[in-house]
Amino acid sequence: MSGAVHVGLDLGGTNAKCAVLSPDGAILAEARAPNDADRGENAVLARLVSLAKAAAAPHGPIATAGLGLPGHFDPADGRGTLLPNLPGEWVGRPIARPVSAGLGVPVRLVNDARAMTLAELRLGAGRGVRDLVCVTLGTGVGGGVTIGGRLHLGLGNAGEIGHTTVVPDGPPCGCGNRGCLDRVAGADAIARDAGTGTAAEAIAAARRGEARAADALAAAGRRVGLALAGAVVLLWPQRIVVGGGVAAAGELLLGPLREELRARACVAPEVDVLPAALGAGAGAIGAALWGAEPV
Amino acid sequence: MSGAVHVGLDLGGTNAKCAVLSPDGAILAEARAPNDADRGENAVLARLVSLAKAAAAPHGPIATAGLGLPGHFDPADGRGTLLPNLPGEWVGRPIARPVSAGLGVPVRLVNDARAMTLAELRLGAGRGVRDLVCVTLGTGVGGGVTIGGRLHLGLGNAGEIGHTTVVPDGPPCGCGNRGCLDRVAGADAIARDAGTGTAAEAIAAARRGEARAADALAAAGRRVGLALAGAVVLLWPQRIVVGGGVAAAGELLLGPLREELRARACVAPEVDVLPAALGAGAGAIGAALWGAEPV
Repeated sequence: MSGAVHVGLDLGGTNAKCAVLSPDGAILAEARAPNDADRGENAVLARLVSLAKAAAAPHGPIATAGLGLPGHFDPADGRGTLLPNLPGEWVGRPIARPVSAGLGVPVRLVNDARAMTLAELRLGAGRGVRDLVCVTLGTGVGGGVTIGGRLHLGLGNAGEIGHTTVVPDGPPCGCGNRGCLDRVAGADAIARDAGTGTAAEAIAAARRGEARAADALAAAGRRVGLALAGAVVLLWPQRIVVGGGVAAAGELLLGPLREELRARACVAPEVDVLPAALGAGAGAIGAALWGAEPV
Repeated sequence: MSGAVHVGLDLGGTNAKCAVLSPDGAILAEARAPNDADRGENAVLARLVSLAKAAAAPHGPIATAGLGLPGHFDPADGRGTLLPNLPGEWVGRPIARPVSAGLGVPVRLVNDARAMTLAELRLGAGRGVRDLVCVTLGTGVGGGVTIGGRLHLGLGNAGEIGHTTVVPDGPPCGCGNRGCLDRVAGADAIARDAGTGTAAEAIAAARRGEARAADALAAAGRRVGLALAGAVVLLWPQRIVVGGGVAAAGELLLGPLREELRARACVAPEVDVLPAALGAGAGAIGAALWGAEPV
């Protein structure tokens, strides 16, 4: 459908984001809006439709659409199955269908961290490689895997590196396991270990030279490195990309991460670990790429 | 090359094995011989050639050949790079070329655990699935991953689940890491934990009801389950296959393995864990399949 554009949406806990891509994958526009959670699920979905229509309108008709979600869903019927971080009642609710009806094209769902992975592979820090492992460090820890230049989803939602066990007797995780990376290297864990109110404050404190905050970031980095080491010995990927808000800590986190990864994954060749390049819009960009992906 | 056969060789520490496959992948013959390590590396390679020629002769000319090795190699130049468990001096030595010269066809090298994985996928306990994770429990712990019905090798030797860290402060491993699955769930670790001379004796003792031996097998099973859980949350595979001599412990090991896997990988759908179906010849069969694999 030459001339028509690819639209991507990313529904987060507080914001909805949109990206518009040209037929050859160039980013034409990005937009965001509050997700309207307080007005209910139908309003949230209506907001997605109006956000996408407004963003696409100056550029052309919509050819394909993708929608990133912070959790799991049934790709066959487009309903949510596990969306704990989205305000409202989403499990069992049709999500793809109403957005598709509003936009006039089919809507493909994708997990938001997998969308980020695809965006970084094609347009960001993963350009030029085919086998990539991404991890995104925010309130939770998400991830994604590409094999041969395509997202690997396995039985549906592969890429959940955040639920790798890194502290076998660690704190309980919402998934039912204990000591998941998600519980011990996410923003809350960092703030708690640093004794600050937020992970952003911990990063600021560490930059001022406060040892406890620096130690908290280093510990999180080492835990991410341990989980990534398991992925690296298993997959021997070409590159690793680290994104999400907590990745703003830069070398305070990435340095210890690389050190742990190298010490643990010494059976595999050394892999470059790069910060994500696309920022907070990566999820919407990746959703647009996913919607446009040949089946 | 219709009518011609596919030959696979598996060079182990004490034995060389051979499998001959028909053009449509049926197993025509299997053979084994001592690997002749005491006569030197050239004799070992000559033995491989004579073993393959003798096994193939009744069935037809050799179309393709694959050779499984207990370690790593450079696939481009066919030399060994890491073969610690093979008697003799193999690192840097040409391996593919002399066997190829002897057989008159190119020889493709493959790690023995990856060969087993491919064999189980196509002709064993993995039949009918596309995304498979295999682990082989013997003196060491090896493994392999298939994605979309093909071996995933990444930067060359992906599938090293045996070097997943399962005890972060555990014993040093030959790879340079500490607490690798290979060190804490292999045959030596089981015999030590069980207080027996060998893993086979530990299995026999556990079958007689000796608690220490049963505990040792259960502990090994749980450690394998922990490593597999990391692979499962990352890849959401369709099936897991467990092979190698220690897998003869059956449910004494597989029961605790499944329990740990289920508890740790609860974010992913439940995956069947099956014992390998092809036995000790799987490496040679897989090497034959690898030699015949379309590029």
